Amino acid sequence: MTELRVFGISEMPEIGEGAEIGAEIAARAEIASGDFIVVSQKIVSKAEGRVCRLDAVSPGPEAERLAAELGKEAALVELILAESRAVLRAERGLLIAETRHGFVCANAGVDTSNLPESGTVALLPQDPDASARRIRDEIRIATEATPAVIVADSFGRAWRLGQTEVAIGCAGLDPLDDWRGRADAGGRALEATEIAIADEAASAADLVRDKASRVPVAIVRGLGRHVTVEDGPGAAALRRPEAEDLFR
Amino acid sequence: MTELRVFGISEMPEIGEGAEIGAEIAARAEIASGDFIVVSQKIVSKAEGRVCRLDAVSPGPEAERLAAELGKEAALVELILAESRAVLRAERGLLIAETRHGFVCANAGVDTSNLPESGTVALLPQDPDASARRIRDEIRIATEATPAVIVADSFGRAWRLGQTEVAIGCAGLDPLDDWRGRADAGGRALEATEIAIADEAASAADLVRDKASRVPVAIVRGLGRHVTVEDGPGAAALRRPEAEDLFR
Repeated sequence: MTELRVFGISEMPEIGEGAEIGAEIAARAEIASGDFIVVSQKIVSKAEGRVCRLDAVSPGPEAERLAAELGKEAALVELILAESRAVLRAERGLLIAETRHGFVCANAGVDTSNLPESGTVALLPQDPDASARRIRDEIRIATEATPAVIVADSFGRAWRLGQTEVAIGCAGLDPLDDWRGRADAGGRALEATEIAIADEAASAADLVRDKASRVPVAIVRGLGRHVTVEDGPGAAALRRPEAEDLFR
Repeated sequence: MTELRVFGISEMPEIGEGAEIGAEIAARAEIASGDFIVVSQKIVSKAEGRVCRLDAVSPGPEAERLAAELGKEAALVELILAESRAVLRAERGLLIAETRHGFVCANAGVDTSNLPESGTVALLPQDPDASARRIRDEIRIATEATPAVIVADSFGRAWRLGQTEVAIGCAGLDPLDDWRGRADAGGRALEATEIAIADEAASAADLVRDKASRVPVAIVRGLGRHVTVEDGPGAAALRRPEAEDLFR
């Protein structure tokens, strides 16, 4: 039977622009091809130079208006709008947006915590699936192992309190395990069941993190049956198309 | 550093009405007080007699109308409406409802798979937090260990494809790990961060399950710091109050 082990890599160095995250991981852990490597979005953004100084941003009138309404910094709102394809809600101090990639989350993923310099914020990677593929390549070059790689971020949810970690990028796995049409233990067809295993693995990895410390990478071992040779569809496959979404 | 182990208990018997799930678990696994015991909602519903025969249900006019509109069985829709406090969406064959407990999910949690008799469906437990407390008590009586207990079900999400397992009942943990106001690694206050660890643990447990087989119980070991002596607020604490919800 499946048994999972989940553990963090705590000895990661501070990641700056240009860092090869996959090589840093490979230097600090024995990676096997059946592993899921879950990497926190924050260090991916840092490695990709997706960090902005707020005082270098000139907010436009729309950002000024929204910022005043929501009690947020105008420069921050300007960045959020620049990262957004659509604003879903702007009320009660919250800005829920659809990012340019198509993810729906607070502040279009623009985040101010765990950055070395104050007055800076991190934007989501430009193409988190490409980030995951690159990290996978770097690990393969350093170790000859080809694990699955997930880039993960904490998102809030409609209807439920608290954030959970989800996959915003991935390579080497199908993020949805499709059980539709298969039979249950009683021989009856299972109901519409696609399991978002990439999100579940991201959540499992989050349990060994500590938001205040630097455990930006965790390994989930035991899901080798889900690791694919191909990089696969990426976390793009987890985005519910707007036309099929009842809550946009 | 935290290391998690996640493993299923596959030798559980078929659970019928009146079964003592906690005692069945205790007889099949060495339980420690720091464990999270994640129990699938389906067997809890069976143990609590929350299984209905569809042919015993007389659908009312509202159920008949909705059933015709959605292409669902009228008896099933009648049960869903009886389990619901409010219908959020009824379109494209989908019925998204707020259950009497306050959870928002498809079909108010009424589920047709993995039941021994065809023509039967399972309703959610009447009070899943009470179910978790009772299972915890049964384990304590049998083993003297007082682990955390989570009753888990698979819910869909707005904006993202695929289901993930979430906590609908719990005892012996605070389902939200509240990091608000604590400092990050750089000494800056963390952004609004409450982590839904009960949901993340439910998701981790789901990764060792197999929807088609009978692995209705999994143990997540390594989260002992989150286990509380008191049963605590239960999964009720995970429900976003309607007044604070931007998507209802």
